[in-house]
Amino acid sequence: MENIGHQQQAAGAFERAWSRVKAFPGGLNIRIMANAKAVKKLAQDDPRRVTHSLKVGLALTLVSLLYYTRPLYDGFGVSGMWAVLTVAVIFEFTVGGTLNKGLNRGLATFLAGALGVGAEHLASLFGKTGEPIVLGTLVFLLAAASTFSRFFPRIKQRYDYGVLIFILTFSLVAVSGCRVDEIIVLAHERLSTILIGGATCMVVCIFVCPVWAGEDLHKLIASNLDKVGSYLEGFGGEYFEIVILPEEKGSCSDVSKDDKSFLEGYKSVLGSKSLEETFANLARWEPGHGRFRLRHPWKQYLKIGALTRKCAYHIEALNGYLGSDTKGSTEFLGKVQGPCTTMSKESSKALKALSSAIKTMTNPSPANLHVENSRTAIKDLKIALSDALVETNDLLEVVPGATVASILIEIVKCVEKISESVHELSNLAHFKDIEATVSPEKSQQLLHRGSVNPVNLDGDDDEHVIITIQDHHDSPELVSKEIQKQKDHHDLPETVSKEIQKQKAGHHDHGGKQLEV
Amino acid sequence: MENIGHQQQAAGAFERAWSRVKAFPGGLNIRIMANAKAVKKLAQDDPRRVTHSLKVGLALTLVSLLYYTRPLYDGFGVSGMWAVLTVAVIFEFTVGGTLNKGLNRGLATFLAGALGVGAEHLASLFGKTGEPIVLGTLVFLLAAASTFSRFFPRIKQRYDYGVLIFILTFSLVAVSGCRVDEIIVLAHERLSTILIGGATCMVVCIFVCPVWAGEDLHKLIASNLDKVGSYLEGFGGEYFEIVILPEEKGSCSDVSKDDKSFLEGYKSVLGSKSLEETFANLARWEPGHGRFRLRHPWKQYLKIGALTRKCAYHIEALNGYLGSDTKGSTEFLGKVQGPCTTMSKESSKALKALSSAIKTMTNPSPANLHVENSRTAIKDLKIALSDALVETNDLLEVVPGATVASILIEIVKCVEKISESVHELSNLAHFKDIEATVSPEKSQQLLHRGSVNPVNLDGDDDEHVIITIQDHHDSPELVSKEIQKQKDHHDLPETVSKEIQKQKAGHHDHGGKQLEV
Repeated sequence: MENIGHQQQAAGAFERAWSRVKAFPGGLNIRIMANAKAVKKLAQDDPRRVTHSLKVGLALTLVSLLYYTRPLYDGFGVSGMWAVLTVAVIFEFTVGGTLNKGLNRGLATFLAGALGVGAEHLASLFGKTGEPIVLGTLVFLLAAASTFSRFFPRIKQRYDYGVLIFILTFSLVAVSGCRVDEIIVLAHERLSTILIGGATCMVVCIFVCPVWAGEDLHKLIASNLDKVGSYLEGFGGEYFEIVILPEEKGSCSDVSKDDKSFLEGYKSVLGSKSLEETFANLARWEPGHGRFRLRHPWKQYLKIGALTRKCAYHIEALNGYLGSDTKGSTEFLGKVQGPCTTMSKESSKALKALSSAIKTMTNPSPANLHVENSRTAIKDLKIALSDALVETNDLLEVVPGATVASILIEIVKCVEKISESVHELSNLAHFKDIEATVSPEKSQQLLHRGSVNPVNLDGDDDEHVIITIQDHHDSPELVSKEIQKQKDHHDLPETVSKEIQKQKAGHHDHGGKQLEV
Repeated sequence: MENIGHQQQAAGAFERAWSRVKAFPGGLNIRIMANAKAVKKLAQDDPRRVTHSLKVGLALTLVSLLYYTRPLYDGFGVSGMWAVLTVAVIFEFTVGGTLNKGLNRGLATFLAGALGVGAEHLASLFGKTGEPIVLGTLVFLLAAASTFSRFFPRIKQRYDYGVLIFILTFSLVAVSGCRVDEIIVLAHERLSTILIGGATCMVVCIFVCPVWAGEDLHKLIASNLDKVGSYLEGFGGEYFEIVILPEEKGSCSDVSKDDKSFLEGYKSVLGSKSLEETFANLARWEPGHGRFRLRHPWKQYLKIGALTRKCAYHIEALNGYLGSDTKGSTEFLGKVQGPCTTMSKESSKALKALSSAIKTMTNPSPANLHVENSRTAIKDLKIALSDALVETNDLLEVVPGATVASILIEIVKCVEKISESVHELSNLAHFKDIEATVSPEKSQQLLHRGSVNPVNLDGDDDEHVIITIQDHHDSPELVSKEIQKQKDHHDLPETVSKEIQKQKAGHHDHGGKQLEV
């Protein structure tokens, strides 16, 4: 009996051990599979990541082989490695990032090299004992001052990397212990290799599947508007349907379950500020590309982004009522359902129209109608609220619905502001015009409204700009573009640019006026 | 006459020219003054910026002079410059940042150096023609794969700099064109100089006025709670006073103008997410310091931060009603003023108590009373709303006030969640206990409520923990700490920890129970 027991024990131990051995590669397999899936997902989410990795590999291999082959190696000596170093360090995901780092690195190396030679020369005047003291002091002062300058937001945004390289190069050159003529040879070698590395990076970055920070910003802003729009599109149905028609809830629950994702989209908008700012900073370094000119108004995108985020904050408040069980009196909700759904739907349409106007870079005037409609819905809501009192028995039952309505009013106001700032962007970036939709009477009325204040923001009294508005039936587009161009130079204030916008909307033009701006 | 005219003209031209000459240094002076003011403000806002700049100067000067003096220079050859380079590149504002970069750099250099030597050796087996092809392929593959790995959020957060240095060093070593034994000498030199540079940085960074990312996170979270609290403290007065007492508005406008700043503080909370995440990432690299242990629960701070931000979103919605002119019926506002002001005041007190509990690292139970009070105020508000109906003539007039009340309810709920997560932090980080404030009856009631579910989260059947609760009138603090310690090892679920917390609040203890956890 005991023997059998022992045998069983041994068999058990063996089985356990075997299962562990079997499990080990299994566990490893599972891990590898999980990692492979993560890699695949990362690549599918943004295929440009794969391209970027291959581009870095390409640039680095090119420069490395150039360094490996004798001609360059013999010519530049050990300095050849600076080309490799430069490529590895400055190659960024976006063109703007690469240009920013590359230009910063080149300029800072040049400047710090020159200063370093000067410092070396100055220090050599103080003799053997004085030299290290003077050099140490200079390095200390320059490093401390430069480091402090990195705390300035403007420098941090644009020249952070440059200042770093400046400190680095200055210290290296100043304390290299070489004679000045040696240093100049060294500096020349180093600069040329950095140029080779930098040029390789920029060529590969710009000409092989480029990733533009500006385009990313453009798309991000448009998609954020879209996300907020999608939420508002679904909100009315989601909030009121479930309350009013609880018996139908079961039948359509499958559909609404599938749809729930649009209710989450806006959440990414809440935290997109830093991403937008990064893109805007890098976009400024990029040359004109595709639909974007060199001086595309990237700052205006930040303005739209901030307003969109404000709208998303309101939605975050609204979202709290969506899941809530205490929605209050059904009759009251029935009263306000119409206007509230209209407000939400029309705001959504306005946002989507604005988003598609940005995407296609066309005039965003189609959104105006929806903004107008949502504003009208506010009036309807107010009438509905006045009526609702008659049938209300308990104020407490009214509060949740009234709050939702009230937040929707704020959202409509916010959408109006977004629309204004997209129109501003459209003017600044010369979005293509599509057919105007304003009637002739209205434009006539607008044009007769007024004079434009003479403006002189530059404080320069000698310069006056004469804007001549042509006679009857000339293309108002032409005129407004003319004004727009001059505006770019002279910074017209809000009032004038609004006037111009109004004129742009009209078809007819009356009287040759001279606006002195 | 003409002559005089000419003279006048000449005099005029001279005066204009002179005024420009005078204005030039004046303009320069103004610019210099403005810059000096900006520098002063930057330094006053955070004096650690000045210290940091001086520290960088110090570290760089030390290493530069070490490199300048012959012993090191002769010993390490050109490699000595890597020490200077390392200091310039890895010295960051916070200790966490410096350690992160320093350790990443050291480890990556070592690893990439070893791999590079291997690659060189492998390639040399393929003969003169095969070598560059094999090396090029290896550099391409490794660079592409490493670059892609930087897109993984976990790697990006912690090892981004390490991967960069890995790519850099591998390429440099692999294509250096040296024989293996030469490379090893070179690698050894480079590693030791990097170690010298890194060690200098870390010593200066840690021992001269250190800036801890963890402490900054700790303070940021506490100050964010404070800011939200300050808004709520003032909100009730700000919203209701002006409405109810328009005749007093004039007399007290000077006071309220001075006070307005507290209404803006919460806005910085809206966008503090990325800062919090950066601090939390860096804090993990820091050793224990001051009041913080090595494994301080930094992640819990992010949780509190997210909830605080959610609260700030609600406040952003609330803030829209503060400036609004249409506040609706004054009578209705009079009805809800009491409970609304209480909710806002008590939430504010709760938040400030939580903030000071975090600051002093003491048990946050004093906040419980205020949370309880604000919850009671919600009930009062509901009663007030029921009463208000009788006197209301127009529902429209009620909506703004009702919305404010409704948003305040959401804020109270949010504050409750914040309180819970601060309590969690207090448990995880072993905040000091202060005297309990619950009456004996209540604790008795709580203690008799129930059994604790047996828990086994580790899935390890062999281990049972016996928690013995001592007999009558023993210090409950002691017991709860005992439980707390065991909890850390075995991850009790929510229910148990709440039970423990309740027991912690009590003064008396009844019966020796054995909890099998």
